[in-house]
Amino acid sequence: MTAIDQMLTTHPKAASIEAADVLARCIEACIECAQTCTACADACLSEDMVAELVTCITKNANCADICTATGAVLSRQTTVDVEVVRAVVEACRTACAACAQECEQHADMHEHCRVCAEACRRCEQACNDLLAAL
Amino acid sequence: MTAIDQMLTTHPKAASIEAADVLARCIEACIECAQTCTACADACLSEDMVAELVTCITKNANCADICTATGAVLSRQTTVDVEVVRAVVEACRTACAACAQECEQHADMHEHCRVCAEACRRCEQACNDLLAAL
Amino acid sequence: MTAIDQMLTTHPKAASIEAADVLARCIEACIECAQTCTACADACLSEDMVAELVTCITKNANCADICTATGAVLSRQTTVDVEVVRAVVEACRTACAACAQECEQHADMHEHCRVCAEACRRCEQACNDLLAAL
Amino acid sequence: MTAIDQMLTTHPKAASIEAADVLARCIEACIECAQTCTACADACLSEDMVAELVTCITKNANCADICTATGAVLSRQTTVDVEVVRAVVEACRTACAACAQECEQHADMHEHCRVCAEACRRCEQACNDLLAAL
Repeated sequence: MTAIDQMLTTHPKAASIEAADVLARCIEACIECAQTCTACADACLSEDMVAELVTCITKNANCADICTATGAVLSRQTTVDVEVVRAVVEACRTACAACAQECEQHADMHEHCRVCAEACRRCEQACNDLLAAL
Repeated sequence: MTAIDQMLTTHPKAASIEAADVLARCIEACIECAQTCTACADACLSEDMVAELVTCITKNANCADICTATGAVLSRQTTVDVEVVRAVVEACRTACAACAQECEQHADMHEHCRVCAEACRRCEQACNDLLAAL
Repeated sequence: MTAIDQMLTTHPKAASIEAADVLARCIEACIECAQTCTACADACLSEDMVAELVTCITKNANCADICTATGAVLSRQTTVDVEVVRAVVEACRTACAACAQECEQHADMHEHCRVCAEACRRCEQACNDLLAAL
Repeated sequence: MTAIDQMLTTHPKAASIEAADVLARCIEACIECAQTCTACADACLSEDMVAELVTCITKNANCADICTATGAVLSRQTTVDVEVVRAVVEACRTACAACAQECEQHADMHEHCRVCAEACRRCEQACNDLLAAL
């Protein structure tokens, strides 16, 4: 049981175990993806061919910022505004898909892009699962 | 001319003056709204009637996080992924409208909610203007 | 092996395995603590006795923001400015200790404060370990 | 009177006008510097000589993250933990000085680095002023 699960289950307005699990997996994926994207942007900057990776770096940075915000919004259960949650999770899914698509193009050449693409795809899927449960 | 305008006009891929202005106003509104919402959440926490303001505090915190992410994404012009921009600006508009609506209910009693509601409405409008120009 | 470890070991300027491990544990602790603090602030807002928890909520929010920034800075290895790293990790350690101390006072009554205090102490320790290795 | 000033003066625990002004100028400088650094990192990515600007981009990104966190912490007045405030403002000053020094080396060639260096120096000064007033 991760700290995310513990925080959700000890919340005064704890969701049902099933709903909490979909939510926990999405929060987890968002913060993992945010870190991976920040690290991938930086790893790209250290490559000799950095000039060919500027699109990847920009998409990484955008995805990191949106994932961080989404993970924070999803961590707040006192008042859940479904419209806001839906909009930010949709933005997160869009950013993850765009970043994954870009990183996948460099995955053969750069291991960090491969790892990052996988984290983006996991987060995209976790957003889809959460949207389906809303 | 603000630092935001200067950064947009000195960017190697500078947009047309007209497009840059709509963009600059939206970035400006996002970062103003993020700060105002963080400050309003905190001011609400200092009110005697804090228990009646927990929804306001939560919406403020969500709005602040989404506005900060949106302002950062809009500041990146190297590669503009219109789909990602559209999704995050829509999320920002939704969060601003939700927060404004909540703050407006407390605006008569709390000046900080009045100031914050105005910043949220300005940001909502700036998001609308930018979405119309995409 | 977490995604954080994978990103550090696939970085073109990968640190030694030993240094990478101290770094990975600190990044991991920072992003876990940021999430836990955001969730704890929100859980406190849902408590009936919220008025007695406003200091806890404020310290949680500050700790979350500083941990998020620290986790991002530590994820960047292209150019490491030791002075900046040291200053931000010291700020992170200070914020974690302050938040832990506050949450520990409510740990008997609120499980979320107990879980959060533990995450803060883990992050404080990880910051200490990293500072010792700089 | 900016929205930042308005939020500080309408806060239930409003500081004295003089203290509020030093604080408002520092918050203002932090959020301006965060935006400028994000934009400068992105503008550097669009330069043909991006390979020579990777240190600048990394320092910009770190400075942006630390300034954003500092601006948020300073916006919270419900409970002010002077030790935490001091530590994060010191980290902010260190990051701004490091980023300014780097951007100044490219200021003759890149206007965005000149504008960004100025924003970093303003923020460094505002941090110094606030630290002197703590």
